[in-house]
Amino acid sequence: MPLPVKHRAALVKEFGKPLVVEEIPTPEPRDRQVLIKVVGAGICHTDVHVWKGDWSVAGIPPKLPFILSHEVVGTIAAKGDKVPDDLKEGRNVLVYAWQWSRDDVYVAKGLTQLSEYPAHMAIVADGGMQEYYLVSDYRFLVSVDGLEDLPAVAPLACAGLTTYRAVKRILSHLEPDDYVAVIGLGGLGSYAIQWIRALAPYVNLIGVAGRDESLEFASRIVKLDATVNTSKVDPAKAIMEITKGRGLKAVVDTVGTETTIMVYTSLLTKMGVHMIVGMIGGEAKISPLLPFIVNERILTGSIVGSLGEQIDVVTAAKRGMVNYRAVVTRRLKLEEVTEGLEALEKRRALGRQVVVL
Amino acid sequence: MPLPVKHRAALVKEFGKPLVVEEIPTPEPRDRQVLIKVVGAGICHTDVHVWKGDWSVAGIPPKLPFILSHEVVGTIAAKGDKVPDDLKEGRNVLVYAWQWSRDDVYVAKGLTQLSEYPAHMAIVADGGMQEYYLVSDYRFLVSVDGLEDLPAVAPLACAGLTTYRAVKRILSHLEPDDYVAVIGLGGLGSYAIQWIRALAPYVNLIGVAGRDESLEFASRIVKLDATVNTSKVDPAKAIMEITKGRGLKAVVDTVGTETTIMVYTSLLTKMGVHMIVGMIGGEAKISPLLPFIVNERILTGSIVGSLGEQIDVVTAAKRGMVNYRAVVTRRLKLEEVTEGLEALEKRRALGRQVVVL
Amino acid sequence: MPLPVKHRAALVKEFGKPLVVEEIPTPEPRDRQVLIKVVGAGICHTDVHVWKGDWSVAGIPPKLPFILSHEVVGTIAAKGDKVPDDLKEGRNVLVYAWQWSRDDVYVAKGLTQLSEYPAHMAIVADGGMQEYYLVSDYRFLVSVDGLEDLPAVAPLACAGLTTYRAVKRILSHLEPDDYVAVIGLGGLGSYAIQWIRALAPYVNLIGVAGRDESLEFASRIVKLDATVNTSKVDPAKAIMEITKGRGLKAVVDTVGTETTIMVYTSLLTKMGVHMIVGMIGGEAKISPLLPFIVNERILTGSIVGSLGEQIDVVTAAKRGMVNYRAVVTRRLKLEEVTEGLEALEKRRALGRQVVVL
Amino acid sequence: MPLPVKHRAALVKEFGKPLVVEEIPTPEPRDRQVLIKVVGAGICHTDVHVWKGDWSVAGIPPKLPFILSHEVVGTIAAKGDKVPDDLKEGRNVLVYAWQWSRDDVYVAKGLTQLSEYPAHMAIVADGGMQEYYLVSDYRFLVSVDGLEDLPAVAPLACAGLTTYRAVKRILSHLEPDDYVAVIGLGGLGSYAIQWIRALAPYVNLIGVAGRDESLEFASRIVKLDATVNTSKVDPAKAIMEITKGRGLKAVVDTVGTETTIMVYTSLLTKMGVHMIVGMIGGEAKISPLLPFIVNERILTGSIVGSLGEQIDVVTAAKRGMVNYRAVVTRRLKLEEVTEGLEALEKRRALGRQVVVL
Repeated sequence: MPLPVKHRAALVKEFGKPLVVEEIPTPEPRDRQVLIKVVGAGICHTDVHVWKGDWSVAGIPPKLPFILSHEVVGTIAAKGDKVPDDLKEGRNVLVYAWQWSRDDVYVAKGLTQLSEYPAHMAIVADGGMQEYYLVSDYRFLVSVDGLEDLPAVAPLACAGLTTYRAVKRILSHLEPDDYVAVIGLGGLGSYAIQWIRALAPYVNLIGVAGRDESLEFASRIVKLDATVNTSKVDPAKAIMEITKGRGLKAVVDTVGTETTIMVYTSLLTKMGVHMIVGMIGGEAKISPLLPFIVNERILTGSIVGSLGEQIDVVTAAKRGMVNYRAVVTRRLKLEEVTEGLEALEKRRALGRQVVVL
Repeated sequence: MPLPVKHRAALVKEFGKPLVVEEIPTPEPRDRQVLIKVVGAGICHTDVHVWKGDWSVAGIPPKLPFILSHEVVGTIAAKGDKVPDDLKEGRNVLVYAWQWSRDDVYVAKGLTQLSEYPAHMAIVADGGMQEYYLVSDYRFLVSVDGLEDLPAVAPLACAGLTTYRAVKRILSHLEPDDYVAVIGLGGLGSYAIQWIRALAPYVNLIGVAGRDESLEFASRIVKLDATVNTSKVDPAKAIMEITKGRGLKAVVDTVGTETTIMVYTSLLTKMGVHMIVGMIGGEAKISPLLPFIVNERILTGSIVGSLGEQIDVVTAAKRGMVNYRAVVTRRLKLEEVTEGLEALEKRRALGRQVVVL
Repeated sequence: MPLPVKHRAALVKEFGKPLVVEEIPTPEPRDRQVLIKVVGAGICHTDVHVWKGDWSVAGIPPKLPFILSHEVVGTIAAKGDKVPDDLKEGRNVLVYAWQWSRDDVYVAKGLTQLSEYPAHMAIVADGGMQEYYLVSDYRFLVSVDGLEDLPAVAPLACAGLTTYRAVKRILSHLEPDDYVAVIGLGGLGSYAIQWIRALAPYVNLIGVAGRDESLEFASRIVKLDATVNTSKVDPAKAIMEITKGRGLKAVVDTVGTETTIMVYTSLLTKMGVHMIVGMIGGEAKISPLLPFIVNERILTGSIVGSLGEQIDVVTAAKRGMVNYRAVVTRRLKLEEVTEGLEALEKRRALGRQVVVL
Repeated sequence: MPLPVKHRAALVKEFGKPLVVEEIPTPEPRDRQVLIKVVGAGICHTDVHVWKGDWSVAGIPPKLPFILSHEVVGTIAAKGDKVPDDLKEGRNVLVYAWQWSRDDVYVAKGLTQLSEYPAHMAIVADGGMQEYYLVSDYRFLVSVDGLEDLPAVAPLACAGLTTYRAVKRILSHLEPDDYVAVIGLGGLGSYAIQWIRALAPYVNLIGVAGRDESLEFASRIVKLDATVNTSKVDPAKAIMEITKGRGLKAVVDTVGTETTIMVYTSLLTKMGVHMIVGMIGGEAKISPLLPFIVNERILTGSIVGSLGEQIDVVTAAKRGMVNYRAVVTRRLKLEEVTEGLEALEKRRALGRQVVVL
């Protein structure tokens, strides 16, 4: 397949302004590099932050114009001479987004997402909101052969992965009949509920969101044992009723505001854990502190996931443990990315929006 | 040995007022009960709270007059007819303080301190600041035969136990050459540094306190790799210098104020853990939250310890893993308990004060 | 309810000879004791060993006549004056069989089944194959209110518990799409497959047995991904075909002969675990040893379970995680115990046989 | 520094015959490759097996002539253009021996030693018994700057690493005052005792060997609580006396014969673990099996270690946690490798022999 000289990309040229679709040079892969023909690119809440320039003081993104999306799936279009034979042109692959530029002790120990040499897509390096994406090393590719509806696979790279790691990290806390709440039922939340059902089917699962549409959307993906609409009822009171006064063994908090942290850490049982998921700002407060200590509660955060976990996530999807197609609610063209970003920013979106190329 | 009809006890008759030493009836042990001739009773910071009535709104203590001290060591004076033969009169025993009145699932799983039927000494039940103390069940006794200087053994029941559990819970996080800070070097802190040295000799240990005397006292017990006097230097800056910018893998925080939690959670490395130890009030704040999440830091609390851990603590003391004698800085008479409470309240005390009977 | 002076019990009077049903005195419960009106008593393979005198050289049972069955369910008939009020007469309870006579460090740590003071039912103390059974302490009772078909609940005390612990112990090894084999599909095996499905639904489950009836019986309880009839095919070859050459991540071996251990340890993947379940004699052999080491395989055994695990097992049954009724294939009268023992000995039984009183 | 065109290497030309020192071409490093000027190369028992052709049926080594040694330390002599700047010529590095040729899920998860694409030195690829060694990727290098006596550092790559992993894997089993035995006090054993002392100073350490010289040698490196000379006393009896009947919580078995496995698995306490270390052949037997199961004992093996563990091992050595110099008992020239192999084969060697170049 002859490669083009140029290809189209959606560029952030100015913070908060509509993205511009332009042609940029198509690189030729060398050595261990692989060129991907992008098929699907998800829009994550992080993309909104980067687009708006919320993190520009922290040097994110490092330059403009910048290309968004760290949820990228596609087919191998070309490759360098050190890429193994079995990674043939035409194979479907998911791109591991939390790449690194040099191996260090974190990489050696399998905590690749914590590398001191991060090359995270759409954060410090260009992402995949473009027709072709150059992967720096074939080891960042995970084969998704056998998964249908390729564009819908993209969110496994962030929404799927991040919640998998978060749920794995609370798993050792969960015992039969415990109560677990997922706060926020957007892209992350709609995967979180699926992982809990798949990995700990023996707990009672409570979905918490501020809109009935979100609760209904989530309920169509998995059976929720209870739902709480925080715009209609006092969540603390509702949770204590649902749990018959026992409280929550774990909270997967995809919202992570000062309010959610204060409310839900106070609803934890003994040795309960509040897990904040995603790159969330603001601050956290626990008050009063005494019951937090006396009950040995835990507050922690989880950030994306490792390459090893990404492989497991794809295996799980192949096994049907999660319904990745149900998470995707809207498919956009490259020209419509700005629209998708705005819908997400204004909390009008459900599940995940994916750009199909 | 004939038992007395009455024995002396230091009673809290009014919150915050001097304790009154009075004679009270000496009970006769029945069934599984054991009467202990108290030899040493430690004064813990919790005793100050109970004495002052700080927790009276929470029903602690349940009534006045009340008897303080949950750090009790002594000899078996008499016992009920269902107590095994080998628990002979005259044997030296430590009393497990975090007793319970009925077995439940927490007890069944070895988390005795979390029982839903707590009978915690000097919190909801009378403590051991008296000449004789009646133990409701012989299973709450741990043999300390072979340990010298019996009164000095008492603090193993709270200061020693609480920090043992806390250090055990951070142990899986610690790797060679990591940095660990202990905040506060009083009764709890002077045990915490010893457990870290004994269980994780391969980490760098930093002692943090607000007084030079405390730092010197701690340094006489174990070798500290570095010390920080928070009344003289900016602790955050000092810690980053000591750790060469790496930060702390773990913090054992025996102070637990809003300030210590905010400062030290921000100094943690990736996957670092901030462990609050002891029954501490107030509130906690983490700000900014983003680095806490992105680095997957952990905030949690630890409360006293289980009966199984109490047995391990005594075993460790017998092995010489901790110098329990060095922690005791002052020995008081029963008439001097008020003096000891005041010294602790006004932060004039070092290590632990023990009442010798 | 007036208690009888005498009640009927099935007695082992001579090793291997038919049991004799006789009247024996009904004890009156005192202090913490509870008298149970037995409703169901399961027949375990261990009962066959004890009945035959296989372990008499080891002092098991300690005397004749002896009463079998450690799977006992019933209702509270009477109780001592130190038993809490809520344990009312008429309540349905399962008896924890792996009792102890004195608390020690194992009990304190929640490993009750490993106590140095064992009072295991039908091993060193009389069991429940009788109309009334005296429980020495109310803490050995687990409420089963709400569970239907009371006699069928009995096997939760051994078959259900033993396999729960075994499966929990392999759980941290299991990842999505791994292969797990259960060897032997009798009483233990038919619970083991259920726990794997309930706790790790994301693995591929292989049932292995020597009879088609057993494989069919198991397949009616849960969906097996594959079955192997060892009397018809070479199990090693069959397993490698089923797993597409990958091998097994875990084996739950309820047979535990020299053959099963040698065959299945050699079929393990890297870091795979072979878990022998139940009180099994003989010896084990691993040959050749090199692949066992190079792949860091694990061989271990699991024995019954703790009181904490027993509580979890009942919670799980209440939640419907296991179909305990499906395991019971035959209900016998007290006069028919010998028949049941013989059926089990001659491997004619399926699932579990329960004596209904 | 101009590189030579040729350099000397000790070649295995015929199995079991004396090695031949010959000049071979010196390769030029490209891309991510690094050329190491070898300073020290350890002789491991595995080298004896490879040299004798013991594993030739398994394709080890893959061809003749073959170069031994997977314990290689040296300085950077030259490097490819993709090697980072800070890896400068002249820096001292240890070579991670358990290399791989392609990343897979094991590598992604930090279990590099278990990669399905092994390129293990001196097993399937040439080792470092030569003046220059070409490392295929700079990520296999661990900086040892600051460690004195460079040749003595070499055994950290196998003897040090293998035992570190093994001891780490038993660590969660060990509690204060437990007994741990190290069987065999050669190269592996003399590191194993050091890791136990460094990581679990709170256990009682028993050294077991068949020669007094070995026991004395080990006793000079660390304080052993007890020693057993198996050629003079019955080890089972001796161990039970030393442990006052309690038995061993863990065994680190560097010998791994049918005898050691049978004897020491039978001496384990409840939940005790027998860890076989190193690439050991033969077979294993457990007899009788019942106490193994009833006490939930564990038999497993450990194989070399991961790259992450190698980094930790070097950190530990820098911290002084192990005395790596004391392990090296003999320094040989390249011409004397055969002598070293023979000494090891005939069990005349103590600790580790290192070839100094």
